[in-house]
Amino acid sequence: MRDVAIIGVGETKIGELWDRSLRELGIEAGLKAIQDAGVRGEDVERMYIGNMSAGKLIDQEHVAPLIADYAGLSHIPSTRIESGGASGGMALSEAYKAVASGMNDIVVVGGAEKMTDVGEDEAKKILSSTADQEWETVFGATFESLYAMMARYHMDKYGTTREQLAQVAVKNHSNAAKNPNAQFPRETNKDFVMKAPVVSDPLGMFDCAPLSDGGAAVVLCPVERVDEFEGEPVEIVSMGEGGDTMAVHEREEIGTLKATQRAAEMAYERAGLKPEEIDFAEVHDNFTITEIMAIEDLGFFEKGEGGKATEEGKTELNSEISINTSGGLKAKGRPVGAVGINQAIEAVHQLRGDAGQRQVEDAEYGLTHNMGGTGASAVVHIFGRWS
Amino acid sequence: MRDVAIIGVGETKIGELWDRSLRELGIEAGLKAIQDAGVRGEDVERMYIGNMSAGKLIDQEHVAPLIADYAGLSHIPSTRIESGGASGGMALSEAYKAVASGMNDIVVVGGAEKMTDVGEDEAKKILSSTADQEWETVFGATFESLYAMMARYHMDKYGTTREQLAQVAVKNHSNAAKNPNAQFPRETNKDFVMKAPVVSDPLGMFDCAPLSDGGAAVVLCPVERVDEFEGEPVEIVSMGEGGDTMAVHEREEIGTLKATQRAAEMAYERAGLKPEEIDFAEVHDNFTITEIMAIEDLGFFEKGEGGKATEEGKTELNSEISINTSGGLKAKGRPVGAVGINQAIEAVHQLRGDAGQRQVEDAEYGLTHNMGGTGASAVVHIFGRWS
Repeated sequence: MRDVAIIGVGETKIGELWDRSLRELGIEAGLKAIQDAGVRGEDVERMYIGNMSAGKLIDQEHVAPLIADYAGLSHIPSTRIESGGASGGMALSEAYKAVASGMNDIVVVGGAEKMTDVGEDEAKKILSSTADQEWETVFGATFESLYAMMARYHMDKYGTTREQLAQVAVKNHSNAAKNPNAQFPRETNKDFVMKAPVVSDPLGMFDCAPLSDGGAAVVLCPVERVDEFEGEPVEIVSMGEGGDTMAVHEREEIGTLKATQRAAEMAYERAGLKPEEIDFAEVHDNFTITEIMAIEDLGFFEKGEGGKATEEGKTELNSEISINTSGGLKAKGRPVGAVGINQAIEAVHQLRGDAGQRQVEDAEYGLTHNMGGTGASAVVHIFGRWS
Repeated sequence: MRDVAIIGVGETKIGELWDRSLRELGIEAGLKAIQDAGVRGEDVERMYIGNMSAGKLIDQEHVAPLIADYAGLSHIPSTRIESGGASGGMALSEAYKAVASGMNDIVVVGGAEKMTDVGEDEAKKILSSTADQEWETVFGATFESLYAMMARYHMDKYGTTREQLAQVAVKNHSNAAKNPNAQFPRETNKDFVMKAPVVSDPLGMFDCAPLSDGGAAVVLCPVERVDEFEGEPVEIVSMGEGGDTMAVHEREEIGTLKATQRAAEMAYERAGLKPEEIDFAEVHDNFTITEIMAIEDLGFFEKGEGGKATEEGKTELNSEISINTSGGLKAKGRPVGAVGINQAIEAVHQLRGDAGQRQVEDAEYGLTHNMGGTGASAVVHIFGRWS
């Protein structure tokens, strides 16, 4: 397999972008990434698009060639990759395989989602359709309530507290305040988070990531060809993918994200790296409890210690390990199919050293963790500073 | 890149399967393929699922881990691949890259679609959402009418006749009559086809593929490991993918499938083969006109000669080139996301020499052609007899 680098990145601002269509978001991100990479349209051989539910959200299936077409690349093949919330990360992993295998050289991988063209209730229903419809959501379980059960279990088993959950939101908002593309670039405090309306006990409004519109794209290139292009490269050191049962009730233990553990294990092994060698990570904080479970299951902290570590500031910017420096899904925003690509873009900024106020000092290795449904899919990428 | 083989195949009967769910269809196909390959569950490292629109058809996104889970493979990563009608073929191409790159060894790639859980009008609307919604279907263009325009153009420019279109259906029904898994395993005749109610002039009811439920799966393995398993191997000689504009009105010429030409060119080049070396092909006959355009754009006949060649019997079983020996989408059926896998399965049967009454004599190379939307995506695979 060939080594692979990202040589260009581009993303839209994330938010409730009422006046912009999915194709516009995809094109803006794609063209920015192509420009950043310094590649020409005719260099691009293939495109992948991560997208959760354009069929339901904007009545359009087959969105990949739509976006390729409107970006002036109608001649190249393109495929939509869907793994619920992990669609973006899984699209990156397919693009990585295409380049690593030698099948393609220059590949653009994007993610885009338009969550606000339907009402809020409908959007939440669609998100919940990435859980097991027939055995969970049909009976009234929502995405929020399934994660709330995990939170309750984690609190009961490991002593995780309501305050610790809130601290995840406080930290991520603090990071987002330093990110111009974030949907909510402002600080908050623990009191405010804890007094927010309850969504599904113990999770309140500020424990949940928002519904967002946005697009993001990166350009991949084999390491052996990076010198031909202007874009500053960052290496994709390794990739790992994992699965778990679709329904939460089928799991041995609902306080652990097994797909995440499996994906991480594979990524570390292929990279020859240990969790303690990772300087920063973008993890899938669709709910505050998910970040706490993720930082444990990715091996950054012992199982059950994630809440405590968060409370002690060990996951803050430039602490023990900087978690969600971008603001995460919580505060940078959650344009579902784009999330995995937004995470990769944050990793590139950190490793290029151009993350501005939120720069992790001397960052050498970064990890991204993207998850689908209630954790039935997970994908982990490890990125390395160019040397 | 490593050479890749298919070592196991499995498919459900295709039809209006009111009493069966998507997950059941996926599991039946997957387990049959695993059994045929002689691999054990623990050998399987990854799964891909081709599916067009489970979100709208059965209210379930994130279907790949659902099917993996119910097949007893919840521990492995799985991804849904969506390219409209080309979802199955594109899923096969991603699986091929995963194995060719050395990333995975044993990969199951399936396709499944449940078209009959919604009403017929809704199902057709969903199919049409793989064309350009914003510029085509919103203004009343249906999938049928867009293909009807291509047919009219082809008739006008090349002299293709209504009878020649009908002959495609007659031939494919004749092949399906020899296929126990076909939705319509019975002969028809030209008169009957031409007297059927008009859907969108010149296309009548029997010029259109049906709406179908079905599941199909194949097991991939690197050639270097085929001896470890019982399944009789068939080699995937090469793969090519192509794109085109999303909207039909953006094309230079609507009688040509450019994505198909691009995919074919890439597949022939990588295989070092010429169209005349191919013994049989499964082509994407979602409409009769599509088969006529496809056999031209795949290089089997000169542009404009597809209708005439069909009329002269050159595409019949064991003639110049056997086209759609399975019965094709027209008569074997169209479980959309499974189609590309159903095609690969036919290729395997032909190259293993166990296609029964529809066996192509001395078949050495076979080609499959799977298309999405009105031709914005196309993927071609070439398969070779094990030697």
